[in-house]
Amino acid sequence: MRAELVAVGSELLLGESVDTNSAWISARLAEIGVDVYRHTTVGDNVGRMADVLREALRRSDAVIVTGGLGPTQDDLTRNAVARVAGVDLRRHDEIVDHLGAYFARIGRRLTDNNLVQADLPVGARVIDPVGTAPGFALEVGDAVVYALPGVPREMEAMLEGAVVPELAGRGGRATTVSRVVRTAGIAEAAVADLSAPVVRRLDESGNPTVAFLATRGETRVRVTGKAPARAEALALVDPVVDELLDLLGTNVVGVDDEGVEHAVARQLDRLGWSLAVAESVTAGGVGARLATVPGASGWFLGGLVTYATHAKRALAGVDPAVLDSHGPVSEPVAARLTEGARDRLGADVALGVVGVAGPTDQGGVPVGTVCVAVTGPAPAGPDAVRTVRLPRRARVETQQWAASVALDFLRRRLADQVRDGR
Amino acid sequence: MRAELVAVGSELLLGESVDTNSAWISARLAEIGVDVYRHTTVGDNVGRMADVLREALRRSDAVIVTGGLGPTQDDLTRNAVARVAGVDLRRHDEIVDHLGAYFARIGRRLTDNNLVQADLPVGARVIDPVGTAPGFALEVGDAVVYALPGVPREMEAMLEGAVVPELAGRGGRATTVSRVVRTAGIAEAAVADLSAPVVRRLDESGNPTVAFLATRGETRVRVTGKAPARAEALALVDPVVDELLDLLGTNVVGVDDEGVEHAVARQLDRLGWSLAVAESVTAGGVGARLATVPGASGWFLGGLVTYATHAKRALAGVDPAVLDSHGPVSEPVAARLTEGARDRLGADVALGVVGVAGPTDQGGVPVGTVCVAVTGPAPAGPDAVRTVRLPRRARVETQQWAASVALDFLRRRLADQVRDGR
Repeated sequence: MRAELVAVGSELLLGESVDTNSAWISARLAEIGVDVYRHTTVGDNVGRMADVLREALRRSDAVIVTGGLGPTQDDLTRNAVARVAGVDLRRHDEIVDHLGAYFARIGRRLTDNNLVQADLPVGARVIDPVGTAPGFALEVGDAVVYALPGVPREMEAMLEGAVVPELAGRGGRATTVSRVVRTAGIAEAAVADLSAPVVRRLDESGNPTVAFLATRGETRVRVTGKAPARAEALALVDPVVDELLDLLGTNVVGVDDEGVEHAVARQLDRLGWSLAVAESVTAGGVGARLATVPGASGWFLGGLVTYATHAKRALAGVDPAVLDSHGPVSEPVAARLTEGARDRLGADVALGVVGVAGPTDQGGVPVGTVCVAVTGPAPAGPDAVRTVRLPRRARVETQQWAASVALDFLRRRLADQVRDGR
Repeated sequence: MRAELVAVGSELLLGESVDTNSAWISARLAEIGVDVYRHTTVGDNVGRMADVLREALRRSDAVIVTGGLGPTQDDLTRNAVARVAGVDLRRHDEIVDHLGAYFARIGRRLTDNNLVQADLPVGARVIDPVGTAPGFALEVGDAVVYALPGVPREMEAMLEGAVVPELAGRGGRATTVSRVVRTAGIAEAAVADLSAPVVRRLDESGNPTVAFLATRGETRVRVTGKAPARAEALALVDPVVDELLDLLGTNVVGVDDEGVEHAVARQLDRLGWSLAVAESVTAGGVGARLATVPGASGWFLGGLVTYATHAKRALAGVDPAVLDSHGPVSEPVAARLTEGARDRLGADVALGVVGVAGPTDQGGVPVGTVCVAVTGPAPAGPDAVRTVRLPRRARVETQQWAASVALDFLRRRLADQVRDGR
């Protein structure tokens, strides 16, 4: 079954609001096996709305329209659907009664403006409102149009209550399930190379499909499977996810909603280790990300934010001679800070990060330079400190990316430890 | 001049990502007087992409496509545009060179996959890449297609550098300009009440318009004006912004892109004071936000992340008796932590925050409880510590909201100081 979504509102075409409804509806329809082929956004103009609806109906079994059901003169979805269906509008007395009761309850006066919300295309079935705006469903030829309000909370409740049951009944034959394998510290093309055996095989079958998405500091591989039921779709997807985990190895930071901080949390739990951090360039961003993991108090002790140079001495006891000879953004300083944080907090392992966020280079060290260090109960070894050169970016982006680099560095060291410790 | 936007990506139709690019581009085009008539989202399917492009080109002078320019087999924008234009793809040696240099610089291997990014439709003008993916412009009949990457940062820079100058030259009639006044620590309805005199007057003229947007911890007032040129539109908007700043007074944290951390930075600069932080529930989030302000090293010294209870003693020297009798989430502990941070870093003023992020209540203290403290050179007074009860939300949201509450608490104390010190 094919569906298209139409979002109505000039504020969307002016860029004053972002259409989040279409993504929400799409995710919900994927779960019940309805394929969404297109999203279209159109302004509050009855002619252009009718054009969009006519085209969408020609291509689909169902069209879901959001927005344009309010009481003002720029709410024209009722009129556009009526025009496409070639019918008039008819006032629904039960909606007038509902509006009267609703306004009485909130102590406001019902105006003539509000009554237009009771005018629906002839033949429409009313979808009961959550707020003031009723929705409706109307058969147009072989297809059906659902009109829902644009307010996300109202739209979601009405979709769930009235649209999802109907569409699932009309057969939704296949359910779509996606899982995502997340990698860090490796380029998108290299992820694609490593995944090539899986991709080649799946290209032939076409189900599941694989797609790659690069975000700042992460490349994600999405596996999407289709089957009559969710369990069967997962049975297609899960072995591919396992195969990708094998092929991508230690480049994987997590699956689905799990970020690198969750991988770190799992490893620390497993090792029974506590963690402290020392941060300069990220100024607390690493600690904040670690603390987003529920139960972080089981292993995260805290940290030192040594932003100013003198804070590196005052809080972490870094030797002024080391600061003078190497400069604040250097591997020796990263290592000393990390040791300082571990000692002061009595942690098993510590992670430290220094760097240059910009906008200007710092004492000859270019923007994007990041030094990370890990100090722990295991012998330090040559892998315990590392310098990374990030592409030159805006300050905030460099700071966030530096936090990701630091967390991934720790994750890889802990993974070695978990492996060696077995 | 009429434009349409096309967002490419199956992840958008699956509801796994929200298309924020179209809103961003629309807002930018509104500023240069280009009317956007439609947004369409289509999946990674070359036939359906070509259909969408063909239709959009029939209706418009310019079509801007985002996404589908990466190096993997599901990146098909190049192919779809070539099909619509009826031309082949041609490899661009200068892009191959760019890709080679880019990968060498970041110390990664260029793979065959990456080279497809150098294949553009014959006749296309290259839009220089910000990351690896070059964009391109191609005339198709009387219209022009611009293809840009889907990564927002790259897309924005390339639109600004290459597309906006061209389209602005091709003629727009009216320019739309919006400015935003940001408030914190006050409810949306109260902001609307205070702004009522402005809103009533503007409702009559209709230009500029005013809209209210409530986000987590902030209420924003957007003023939008329309005029033949940007300067004239700003001349309409700016006096209204000034009037709102007057009416909203100390509830305002900033204008446009400036958050509360920028207000804090300005006040500290003015007072010539340095700042330290002590964070428990936010675990570094306050420091990280402060350090996003360029030049933060002029006044931000650093901080203590005292996540575990023992870290409150070990790092900030909080008296165990105070911890025992009041519990870690309490005003006395917030105050002691703050003093500890100020003393250890030698700062003029310090900000501290403790709280319960959840998912579960902590020792009888409910999720969303946040205690903030400020300690500085001025006499402490009864305003120096405060407890706030945030609505029960997801853990991460509570942590971010707590950071905003803490920063706004400091901002209000510093504003008093700036005023009294005059």
